[in-house]
Amino acid sequence: MTARVFVSLKSTVLDPQGETIRAALQGLGYPAIADVRQGKFFDIAIGAGVSAEQARRDIETIAHEVLANPVIEEYRVEFLD
Amino acid sequence: MTARVFVSLKSTVLDPQGETIRAALQGLGYPAIADVRQGKFFDIAIGAGVSAEQARRDIETIAHEVLANPVIEEYRVEFLD
Repeated sequence: MTARVFVSLKSTVLDPQGETIRAALQGLGYPAIADVRQGKFFDIAIGAGVSAEQARRDIETIAHEVLANPVIEEYRVEFLD
Repeated sequence: MTARVFVSLKSTVLDPQGETIRAALQGLGYPAIADVRQGKFFDIAIGAGVSAEQARRDIETIAHEVLANPVIEEYRVEFLD
């Protein structure tokens, strides 16, 4: 079983890295790029000995407590198989 | 128009950051987590004055030349609307 956890800054939080990329793209000749926001994702492979229900619970907890900082970030969990 | 570009290390390339997260999760009591690979994504908003075709071409070029390092990374482009 594989899960993918997407973590991104909340839309109200400034993203200086994305803003830097946007400014660089302007300089490189892409004036049409209006906004860039960067996020990260984690592909997590779960061993075979775990029930789907347990895996879902574990991944939800891991996303909330380890991978994302709920103060400034939001996350989304997807199960790939 | 919004595009999302996913960038991840090629599967043959070692991912020390993902490996560190996997080891930390083992220590936190998640022995079932077999593997973690980290990647990043970019949400790119494209201004209204650009044709869909031009936007697709631009984003493909930006992904290949700016956002990803083709030597060790692979990328995938998705258009959200």
